[in-house]
Amino acid sequence: MHPAEFFFQIALILIAARVCAEVAVRLGAPSVIGELAAGLILGPSLLGILEPNEIIRLLAEIGIILLLFEAGSESDLGRLLHAGTRSAAVAVSGFIFPFVMAFALSYYVFHQALLVALFVGGTLTATSIGITVRILQDVGRQNSKEGEIVLGAAVLDDVLGVLLLAMLYDFSKSGHVSLTNVARVSALISVFFVIAPIAAKLLAFMISRYKNRAQTPGLVATTIISLVLIFAWIAHAVGAPELLGGFAAGLALSRRFFLPFGAALAQDHEFSEEVQRDMKPIVQLFTPIFFVVVGLSLDLRAIDWSSPYIWAFSLSLAALAIIGKIAGGYILMTEHWLMRTAVGMSMVPRGEVGLIFAELGRTTGILDPTSYAALVLVIAYTTLFSPFWIKMFYRLYGHRPELALEDELDAGPDPPPREPAETAARSD
Amino acid sequence: MHPAEFFFQIALILIAARVCAEVAVRLGAPSVIGELAAGLILGPSLLGILEPNEIIRLLAEIGIILLLFEAGSESDLGRLLHAGTRSAAVAVSGFIFPFVMAFALSYYVFHQALLVALFVGGTLTATSIGITVRILQDVGRQNSKEGEIVLGAAVLDDVLGVLLLAMLYDFSKSGHVSLTNVARVSALISVFFVIAPIAAKLLAFMISRYKNRAQTPGLVATTIISLVLIFAWIAHAVGAPELLGGFAAGLALSRRFFLPFGAALAQDHEFSEEVQRDMKPIVQLFTPIFFVVVGLSLDLRAIDWSSPYIWAFSLSLAALAIIGKIAGGYILMTEHWLMRTAVGMSMVPRGEVGLIFAELGRTTGILDPTSYAALVLVIAYTTLFSPFWIKMFYRLYGHRPELALEDELDAGPDPPPREPAETAARSD
Repeated sequence: MHPAEFFFQIALILIAARVCAEVAVRLGAPSVIGELAAGLILGPSLLGILEPNEIIRLLAEIGIILLLFEAGSESDLGRLLHAGTRSAAVAVSGFIFPFVMAFALSYYVFHQALLVALFVGGTLTATSIGITVRILQDVGRQNSKEGEIVLGAAVLDDVLGVLLLAMLYDFSKSGHVSLTNVARVSALISVFFVIAPIAAKLLAFMISRYKNRAQTPGLVATTIISLVLIFAWIAHAVGAPELLGGFAAGLALSRRFFLPFGAALAQDHEFSEEVQRDMKPIVQLFTPIFFVVVGLSLDLRAIDWSSPYIWAFSLSLAALAIIGKIAGGYILMTEHWLMRTAVGMSMVPRGEVGLIFAELGRTTGILDPTSYAALVLVIAYTTLFSPFWIKMFYRLYGHRPELALEDELDAGPDPPPREPAETAARSD
Repeated sequence: MHPAEFFFQIALILIAARVCAEVAVRLGAPSVIGELAAGLILGPSLLGILEPNEIIRLLAEIGIILLLFEAGSESDLGRLLHAGTRSAAVAVSGFIFPFVMAFALSYYVFHQALLVALFVGGTLTATSIGITVRILQDVGRQNSKEGEIVLGAAVLDDVLGVLLLAMLYDFSKSGHVSLTNVARVSALISVFFVIAPIAAKLLAFMISRYKNRAQTPGLVATTIISLVLIFAWIAHAVGAPELLGGFAAGLALSRRFFLPFGAALAQDHEFSEEVQRDMKPIVQLFTPIFFVVVGLSLDLRAIDWSSPYIWAFSLSLAALAIIGKIAGGYILMTEHWLMRTAVGMSMVPRGEVGLIFAELGRTTGILDPTSYAALVLVIAYTTLFSPFWIKMFYRLYGHRPELALEDELDAGPDPPPREPAETAARSD
C-alpha cells in the first residue's frame, strides 16, 4: 500500500469516528455507538469504501490493548480482588448459560451438526471487553461497584472464551480435546495474571527512577508503550488474549496498586501524572480505530434479509444471548436486583471474541454462510443495542441508592482519573 | 502477521532505539546516531532479527511526517520567508553540484552507462530532511539562523529530488522526458505550498473554536493527526513528497504563523498549548521508528567489502557528496564562513530520498548490485558521520558570535518550544 493511501485511510477512520461519535452523543446515544456506526458506514455494510486490511487491523489491536491498559490503570487491584468471587461467579455463569442454551437451540431445535452447534454456543460466550469498558466509561460508571464486578468478569470471561476456542479448534481438527493442554494453558494464564502486574510494577518503578537520568526526550511515551506491547506479547505467548497484557500493565501503573513490599516501590506522584498525561493522547488516537474496525468487520449487506430462517435463528439466539448474560448477573444472590441487572446488562455486548469464533467457524468450513450470517447478526444486535439499554437503564435508575457511586467517596485523596468536564460530557 | 508478533517488533524497535540513543549521547554522539545504529544492529547488517516489513515502513512514514510537523510547528514562517532566497540558493546549488559532479564521475571516470550515471547523480541530490532536522534538534540549533536556512533549503531540495526522480523514471521507461508534465507538477507543488498552510490554519482555527462544544474526549489527538495525514495525502496527490504536507500543517499551527487577516483567526493560547502537549508524546512515539527503519534499510552486509572498485567508487562519490553540499552552503556570499560551513555541513546527510533513488535504480535493473551497494555505502557515510562532524563543529565554534542564537532573544514573550532540560540534554 502506498503511504499516501494509508494516511488517507487512517484520517478517514479518525474523522468518521469523531463525527459519528459527536452525532451519536447529540442524539442521546453513547459515543461508542457512533464509532461502530462509522465502521458500518465506511465498510462493506454501506459505502464499501474501506476494507479492514491487515495494517488497520493491527493498529486496531493496539487500540484495544491501550483501552485495556487505560481500564487497568483506572482500576484498583484491591477492589478488583474484593469483587473477585462475584466477578468469577458472573463470568462463569455468564459463560455457561449462553453456551448451553445456544448449543441446545442449535442442536435440538434447528437440528444442526454437533460441531456447528458447539461453534454457535462458543460464539455467544465471551463478552466484548472493549465495548463493555467503553460503555461504562461513556455512562461514567467505570469506577462503580458494578463496574469493578463487570470488568473482572469480562476479563475472566475473555480467558474462558479463548480457552474454549482453542479446545473447539483442536476438536474440529483432531476429533478430540487434549485436557492436559487446556490445563497447562490455564495454569500458565493464572501464573501470568499473578506475576505480570508485579513484574510490570517493578519495570515501571525502574523507568520512573531512570527518568531523571534520561538524555533523550520521550521516555514515557516510548517505554510505557513498549511495556504494554511486551506484556501483550507475553500474554499471547502463555496462551491468553493479548489484551490481558495491556490490562496487567495498566493495573501495575494504577495509582492504587500496592505491592506487599509496598512503599519502597512507590512511584513518585509526578511520574504517575506524567504517564497519565502522555498516554492519554496516544490512547485517544488508537482506540477509535478499534471500534471502527469492529464496525467494518460486520458485513450486514452479506446477510440475506429475506430469509425467514436467518430471522428466526438470529432472533432466538439473540434472546438467549441476552437472557444468558442477564442470568449471569442474577447469580449474585446477595445483591439488589438493580445491581444484578446492571451487571448482567453490561455483560451482554459480544464483539471481538465472538467475531473470531464465527470467523474461525466460517474459514474452517464448519459454519455454512447462513449460520455465519446469523451469528454476525447476533453480535451486531448485542453490540449495537446494549449501549442504548444501558444508558437508558442508568437514566432511569442511576440515582437510586442501590447504584450509588459511594465507593468514589472513600477512594482517598487521589483525584478522579478523568477530568470532570470529560466525565460530565460522557455521562451526559 | 499475528498481532503479538507485530507488538513484539514495535516494542523491539522502541526499546532498541531508546537504549542505543542513550548510549550514543553518553558517548558524546547525537541521539539520532543511536537510533540509526539500532536499525543497523537489528537489521540485516548485523543481527538480522528484524526486516522492515510494510507495516513498519508505513509507521515510519507517519514518524517522518510527524517530525516535519513538529519542525514546522516550531518554525516561524516570517523567518523562513526571510531566509527564502538564501534557502533557495543553497537548495539549488546543493542539488546541482552533487548531481553534476557525481554524474561526471560515474560517466567519464568509471565509464558507466548514461542512465546509470543519471541515477548515481540523482541519488546524491537530496538532503535527508529527517536526519537534518533531527541533528539540528540534537545540537539545539533548530531555531538558529542557519537552522532556518537549512530547513527551507532541505524542504526545497526534497521537492527538487522528487521532481528529478519522476523525470528519471519517465526517461528510463519511455526514453524521453515530458517537460510539460514536470512544469505541471512544479506548478501544483507551488500552489500547494502557498495554499496548504492557509487552509491548515483555517481548519486548525475551526477545530479550536469547536473544542469547547466537543462531547467526546480526544479532540486534539484525533483531529490534528487527521489534519496532518490529510495534508500529507494532498501533498502526494499534487506530486510533492508527503512530508511536505506534515510540514505545511505544522507551520500553520506554529504560534508564530499569522495570516494577512490576522488577529481574527488567532487561536487561543490554551489551544496551542494543548496541541503541543498532546502531540508531543505521539511525535515521540513515532519518530524513532523512522530512524530505526532507515538503519534497517541499509544492508551493510550485502556489500562486498573486499572489492576495490566499491571502495574507490563509494569513497570518491562520498567526497563529491560532501563537497557538493558544502559548496552549496558557500554560495551564500554575504555570510561569514562559519555560517556557510554550518549550512553546508547540515545539508550533507542523505537518507530516504537517496535510498528511494537507489532502490528504484535497482528494481528497474538500471543499477547493477555493485553500483547499488556503492550508493548505499555513500548514503551510510553521509548519514552516519555527519552528526559527528556537526556536533564537533558546534562544540568548537558554537560560541562564536557569527553563530550566536541572537534571534532567540528577540523572539518575543513566547516560551521556547522545548523544555530547557531537554534542550540542555540534547545540546550536551
